[in-house]
Amino acid sequence: MNAHPNQPAAALAANNTATHALAQRYVRIRAQSLHLAAPLSAEDCQAQSMPDASPVKWHLAHVTWFFETFVLAAFEPLNAPPYKPFNPAYKVLFNSYYNAVGDKHPRPQRGLLTRPSLQAVLEWREAVDAQMLALLASQQGEQAVRLVELGLQHEQQHQELMLTDIKHLLSCNSLRPVYRKAWPLAQVAPIALGWLAFEGGLVEIGRGANEMAGASVADFCFDNETPRHAHYLRPYALANRLTTHGEWLAFMQDGGYCDSRWWLSEGWDWVRAQEISAPLYWSPSQPHGDESDGTTGSGWRSFTLHGEVPIDPHTPITHISYFEADAFARWKAANFADCKGARLPTEFEWEAAVAPRQPLLHARANFVESAALHPMPVARTTGEVAGTASTRPDNGLLQTFGDVWEWTSSPYQPYPGYQPWTGAVGEYDGKFMVNQYVLKGGSCASPAEHVRASYRNFFPTHARWQFSGLRLARDR
Amino acid sequence: MNAHPNQPAAALAANNTATHALAQRYVRIRAQSLHLAAPLSAEDCQAQSMPDASPVKWHLAHVTWFFETFVLAAFEPLNAPPYKPFNPAYKVLFNSYYNAVGDKHPRPQRGLLTRPSLQAVLEWREAVDAQMLALLASQQGEQAVRLVELGLQHEQQHQELMLTDIKHLLSCNSLRPVYRKAWPLAQVAPIALGWLAFEGGLVEIGRGANEMAGASVADFCFDNETPRHAHYLRPYALANRLTTHGEWLAFMQDGGYCDSRWWLSEGWDWVRAQEISAPLYWSPSQPHGDESDGTTGSGWRSFTLHGEVPIDPHTPITHISYFEADAFARWKAANFADCKGARLPTEFEWEAAVAPRQPLLHARANFVESAALHPMPVARTTGEVAGTASTRPDNGLLQTFGDVWEWTSSPYQPYPGYQPWTGAVGEYDGKFMVNQYVLKGGSCASPAEHVRASYRNFFPTHARWQFSGLRLARDR
Amino acid sequence: MNAHPNQPAAALAANNTATHALAQRYVRIRAQSLHLAAPLSAEDCQAQSMPDASPVKWHLAHVTWFFETFVLAAFEPLNAPPYKPFNPAYKVLFNSYYNAVGDKHPRPQRGLLTRPSLQAVLEWREAVDAQMLALLASQQGEQAVRLVELGLQHEQQHQELMLTDIKHLLSCNSLRPVYRKAWPLAQVAPIALGWLAFEGGLVEIGRGANEMAGASVADFCFDNETPRHAHYLRPYALANRLTTHGEWLAFMQDGGYCDSRWWLSEGWDWVRAQEISAPLYWSPSQPHGDESDGTTGSGWRSFTLHGEVPIDPHTPITHISYFEADAFARWKAANFADCKGARLPTEFEWEAAVAPRQPLLHARANFVESAALHPMPVARTTGEVAGTASTRPDNGLLQTFGDVWEWTSSPYQPYPGYQPWTGAVGEYDGKFMVNQYVLKGGSCASPAEHVRASYRNFFPTHARWQFSGLRLARDR
Amino acid sequence: MNAHPNQPAAALAANNTATHALAQRYVRIRAQSLHLAAPLSAEDCQAQSMPDASPVKWHLAHVTWFFETFVLAAFEPLNAPPYKPFNPAYKVLFNSYYNAVGDKHPRPQRGLLTRPSLQAVLEWREAVDAQMLALLASQQGEQAVRLVELGLQHEQQHQELMLTDIKHLLSCNSLRPVYRKAWPLAQVAPIALGWLAFEGGLVEIGRGANEMAGASVADFCFDNETPRHAHYLRPYALANRLTTHGEWLAFMQDGGYCDSRWWLSEGWDWVRAQEISAPLYWSPSQPHGDESDGTTGSGWRSFTLHGEVPIDPHTPITHISYFEADAFARWKAANFADCKGARLPTEFEWEAAVAPRQPLLHARANFVESAALHPMPVARTTGEVAGTASTRPDNGLLQTFGDVWEWTSSPYQPYPGYQPWTGAVGEYDGKFMVNQYVLKGGSCASPAEHVRASYRNFFPTHARWQFSGLRLARDR
Repeated sequence: MNAHPNQPAAALAANNTATHALAQRYVRIRAQSLHLAAPLSAEDCQAQSMPDASPVKWHLAHVTWFFETFVLAAFEPLNAPPYKPFNPAYKVLFNSYYNAVGDKHPRPQRGLLTRPSLQAVLEWREAVDAQMLALLASQQGEQAVRLVELGLQHEQQHQELMLTDIKHLLSCNSLRPVYRKAWPLAQVAPIALGWLAFEGGLVEIGRGANEMAGASVADFCFDNETPRHAHYLRPYALANRLTTHGEWLAFMQDGGYCDSRWWLSEGWDWVRAQEISAPLYWSPSQPHGDESDGTTGSGWRSFTLHGEVPIDPHTPITHISYFEADAFARWKAANFADCKGARLPTEFEWEAAVAPRQPLLHARANFVESAALHPMPVARTTGEVAGTASTRPDNGLLQTFGDVWEWTSSPYQPYPGYQPWTGAVGEYDGKFMVNQYVLKGGSCASPAEHVRASYRNFFPTHARWQFSGLRLARDR
Repeated sequence: MNAHPNQPAAALAANNTATHALAQRYVRIRAQSLHLAAPLSAEDCQAQSMPDASPVKWHLAHVTWFFETFVLAAFEPLNAPPYKPFNPAYKVLFNSYYNAVGDKHPRPQRGLLTRPSLQAVLEWREAVDAQMLALLASQQGEQAVRLVELGLQHEQQHQELMLTDIKHLLSCNSLRPVYRKAWPLAQVAPIALGWLAFEGGLVEIGRGANEMAGASVADFCFDNETPRHAHYLRPYALANRLTTHGEWLAFMQDGGYCDSRWWLSEGWDWVRAQEISAPLYWSPSQPHGDESDGTTGSGWRSFTLHGEVPIDPHTPITHISYFEADAFARWKAANFADCKGARLPTEFEWEAAVAPRQPLLHARANFVESAALHPMPVARTTGEVAGTASTRPDNGLLQTFGDVWEWTSSPYQPYPGYQPWTGAVGEYDGKFMVNQYVLKGGSCASPAEHVRASYRNFFPTHARWQFSGLRLARDR
Repeated sequence: MNAHPNQPAAALAANNTATHALAQRYVRIRAQSLHLAAPLSAEDCQAQSMPDASPVKWHLAHVTWFFETFVLAAFEPLNAPPYKPFNPAYKVLFNSYYNAVGDKHPRPQRGLLTRPSLQAVLEWREAVDAQMLALLASQQGEQAVRLVELGLQHEQQHQELMLTDIKHLLSCNSLRPVYRKAWPLAQVAPIALGWLAFEGGLVEIGRGANEMAGASVADFCFDNETPRHAHYLRPYALANRLTTHGEWLAFMQDGGYCDSRWWLSEGWDWVRAQEISAPLYWSPSQPHGDESDGTTGSGWRSFTLHGEVPIDPHTPITHISYFEADAFARWKAANFADCKGARLPTEFEWEAAVAPRQPLLHARANFVESAALHPMPVARTTGEVAGTASTRPDNGLLQTFGDVWEWTSSPYQPYPGYQPWTGAVGEYDGKFMVNQYVLKGGSCASPAEHVRASYRNFFPTHARWQFSGLRLARDR
Repeated sequence: MNAHPNQPAAALAANNTATHALAQRYVRIRAQSLHLAAPLSAEDCQAQSMPDASPVKWHLAHVTWFFETFVLAAFEPLNAPPYKPFNPAYKVLFNSYYNAVGDKHPRPQRGLLTRPSLQAVLEWREAVDAQMLALLASQQGEQAVRLVELGLQHEQQHQELMLTDIKHLLSCNSLRPVYRKAWPLAQVAPIALGWLAFEGGLVEIGRGANEMAGASVADFCFDNETPRHAHYLRPYALANRLTTHGEWLAFMQDGGYCDSRWWLSEGWDWVRAQEISAPLYWSPSQPHGDESDGTTGSGWRSFTLHGEVPIDPHTPITHISYFEADAFARWKAANFADCKGARLPTEFEWEAAVAPRQPLLHARANFVESAALHPMPVARTTGEVAGTASTRPDNGLLQTFGDVWEWTSSPYQPYPGYQPWTGAVGEYDGKFMVNQYVLKGGSCASPAEHVRASYRNFFPTHARWQFSGLRLARDR
């Protein structure tokens, strides 16, 4: 897997500009990882709160391992000696799951790696960055460029995990430590739930390429988004906005967690075995608390990256499992006349509605760059659905990008004709295509440029530590 | 949920004939359950070998509970007193999972119910049968007839489970007890693997009704088969026959169970945690064994309902999990030029190919009525694919029905527009639609009249104790 | 391990009488096992309710395996062909834990052995009995006689387990099946708790022999009772009677199961992890129940071999763990002036007090022969402690033998100088001498002639399914 | 629990000197904790490698919590304001198991407490130290002095745990990090195993006091060492030295871990379930290694606080469980003529032999002060047993103190007449007296002044991460 030495000069010149842009992008994204870790001590970066999560230090190291393994060890800069691994032992310590690359440190024990220190990992990052920039400056071929872009996309995925994993870790400490102090959010007037109609029919889903696309971020997609293919949809409707904390409270107050009617059988077993009675990070306010304790009368508080805060009824619900999202939809369908037939959307319904309006919807989303680090209620002025919603450019759709990942009812399966990438990066997506569900749209912890309408995130049905929420759908 | 007393006379007359046929069918299917239990002692019927399986006695009781709960307790015969439960405690003991009906005995402890005795359960069956026949003779309305038909379909499902559960139980006994002595099967000449092409396009999938269909077995379908809907398929090909024991041995001998490349990530974890190295029920022949030990040189034997037998290379592989089926397809695709792109079919591909040819394919299948109780190699004379396969009425398809349930790559999800039945029977199918996969075609343990092209069986990805196998597919 | 052929004639003659008595004893004890199984169906005898318990059929087979393995396979009758195993496979199926004898069927799966049938096991018993009686009639040497006696003692141990294991199994069935209908017990007047003083000093503990003693039951003891040795005791007192259900209710009503002060650390973890709030087999009476429901106002009922019955306050408490017994003593010591310093006795204190008065105390005990199969309140007429207790032959001690096994505070350790038996029977006792505690005195399920003052029963600290209770002790 | 203000002046003067000495001792012992943590980074101090172990930071905080809770919160300095907790939340975070003091942070999640930081904990230590010294300078009464001494003894216990816990943590890192680089130890000539005879008889065991003894370290003992009481011993012999790595290799090479004969039943289950085949921290040398890899031909290496080193045959064996120690003794007894009857000593045999010679034996021990942090082979010149061993002051006993804790065959039970301390410190010892075994003599990680002949350490039978080894005993 080496660079192609015989590219024509014209291509190289074009490449020159492209790789220069890529180098700038490389610098910016790598710096963002450090920016996210900045509020944390070396001790904060050390601990692992559960097997699903990883220490921040491990994330910082693993994304570096990715560049070292898949780029530096595979491509040589012109007029320079071949890359020598910073520390050969890191190859095992910071491999996540790539069996083709060799052994790996046991996942549940990542929090035991007190050596290398955070400082040593940062030095490793610097050494790899220097080498990467030298490589990018040396006119690499298309395959190298593609792997660099993949490495950056990969690092952005881990940037989101750094936030969700540190949130889970801090929540385990009864001191209720704060990642970044930036509360309270402004209160806004509620927006009523509305239904937006879509025609369905034979729609095109996914992206065209089936190899890693060109060097620019606009061209990039993961292999699991390919190939573009036809899918037949019946007419359907989507809710104009996300489901809120207030709607969730109503579900709870109606005994939603205690009524087997709303739950999938496996979900019901999960609720009882884990004694689930509220979304993750919720805790009842102290019994001696009065209204002034900030629970706004709901009796519940929620742990956020800004500390523990009262429940805001108009904020999108988050940190729920697939089981909970599905149960909520069934409860809504059975109890509200205007929600008859409510259910989760399929990933295809979501993409078919959002993709044509992507630039507009994407531009106003609450991504990580807003620094809210929490889903936000939609402001009436910017978001209300007018009577002529269908004639508006956004068709009335609110909160499709950012805020929370939206659970769909679609199992995470390969698209028809799917081919994984070749080589070790072929382990990136395909081998997880079983017993998980697709989530769409990104969250308040996602980098804006990382998310697009065709993006397929995926988690098991019980996972709750991501910023996951839901939007209702129904047949027309 | 009571009978409709005001049906017009004509409908009643038609109904009369139909219910007479239904009564005959009731008697026949109920007798078949006893026929399947006949080779077993009361002790055999008592034990439960794992939580997924149930004791035969429990099966015999539970299917009776179904009639008592959903029919006898809901509909009254004309000119007769209302039904009085045989034993009120049975309502809890023999409920499987219907939360709407009340409490249930813990599933993993079904083997501890030494009382009621098998004899008492058989007496209960007789009492319920008498009452059921009285009810059927009293001109019931359509809803009652539908529930009786559902009860019979339900009993047929449990007939298959009785066989697979007792097989698992007997396999735990080092005495290697035999359910029924009927081996050896005749050896046959092998049939080569061939590919049959299908056009795809927008196909119709499923059945039309969205309530329990009419009284006749031909009209019946489960709610999970509805509604009939359009699905878009790319051109594809199916293997002409099932994958065989011999092909599986080649996979094993090539280190298939030790090579992470072929496995989904969750499957690889399962293989290592459970130390899986062969299909369920396989055991290596004794080291001191010579060729005459009946292993036909493979070194492996397999436990069947007829005892432990040597592996026959031309017999369809069975007792494999979804993980194994999927891994085999990947291995095949990577190692055989004529299998490039091999994968599991979707349930839609399978149904679209089989449904148009159902009568012919169904008629020659190895169902439970053949008494083989094991998948059978296809005979060259009846099954070989001639050069003009596509012009033959069966299109060259072999072994689509019976023998083994075929794993598809389709997660078990509701069809677009799916509505569960109303009432407690609404818990029949819908609430299991998560983290399971669809299997098609029935097995050597299925009653012939129970299986059709639209039938959707489903099991979790690790399940192996059913007669489950695979047929390869690929894109054209 | 063969018989000694050269015994002098005189010894043989004495032996003749002894072996004749042994043969009679053999017949009687073997018949008792069948008598205990008589109320049970083949299905009852099949099931295993937890790994600690075994099916009755397995017990009946295992004790037979013991004779076949350790006697018939080792000693030959004169003028007869060597023994041929009834079924060679039984050697593995019915071995319990003797590693020296070979493989064994997994303990948690004993309930899956539906073959051999109960009928086949009974036929095996008959065949072994015939062979055993032939052997006993053929003038065997001392070693054979010793092993026969051991086999009978072993069978008596399993007779008690048959009762405790079937009780546990029946308790898992919400039908509340009855083993034998023989309730209610007569109500008696209570006897006050009193303290009996003992001097302590250097006492002799245990039995003299360190090989299996002679053929007579009076001479027999297990290796764990040997050797007789000196042990130094400080002056102490024992409660005159067992702790009762009524006293236990007071402990519960005072929040005993919710107060960490009374519990060993490991016991407190056990209480919380297992959510223990009452002795085993207790259940609260139905909320709609009135006083006439037979709970005698306590609000609790208990499952017995005679069905579910109300709690009787004067009956000895039973089915408690070591943790519970120990916690009760600490609670008693802290809350009752007349129980200051209360604790569990050591096994040495118990034996030193009881051994000198064994014939009298043993004669009036409630063993299995009484058919009560439940601990019994002591009758005032036979049991009251008069003012001159210390001058009475029994010293005022009540309920020392029978009723319930009494937890002592003594870990089950080898006596100083302990030597296990030689050969495979050396695995009988010694290898369990860790992390268990000694219980003394036998229970209502023990055969009378099986129990003596030096007898050491032992169970782990969490075990509750035996008839286990307690008697308080304290320093003087 | 407040100080006694009315002590006579003379007592106060004596107390003055004593408390001055205690203050010096306080400063010294508190400093030693920091000295032990010095080689570690904040990240090293953060992680918890298993529930049995704790992070070093947690240890440093918990011992401080002890002084704050039991001393500062209970006693007031003269002429000073009452103590105000440094941070009230620490009361829960750093409570270990004292239920009487209130809630506690879950033990397995101590590694998740990234806040407070190590720096904050060190500041807390300084604040508490200042307050403690003020209190000690203010003429406190006896009860305060006793609790200060207890706090120091408690801190010394945690100093040992800091070393064993950090060793376990570092061993989980494939980088094999080093705590302190100080290897290799000098090779010494072996000393032959010899037997030293003791008379037994009625011996006195334990310490006299049953409340916390006076302020001086010489007077201190834990409540579990009391009261002094008589115990009867038969004549016995002890091995002159500890069992070595070389002897353990012989056990392994003879298949010791694969032979059920040597193992207690529960130990054998443990060996197989955990797949134990060597002491903790042993790893086989790489297959491509030659003799120069430092394994000295044994084929094994061991992880130490100085890194991974070759096995030295004359070094005392360590990091073994009770099960392993017991199995080794049985194997030795069965296979070596000079070890017939070998077994583990009782705690009483050990103490009776060592206590009379304590000053001499204690003086030459390898405690933590030697900085070896590993058991050491005994040098022939200082240690060999001459022919007239019994006339020597040490009776020939070697390595009784320091090096490794010696497993005894004595379950950890209360001595006759034992009374726990009153108040919350009564939870210190007594509630752990079940299912653990006593170890004697201290280890290379114990502070010298912390250990005495009557000291009773205790761990469960499977624990291996302490410096635990064994000395053989036998009957004479």
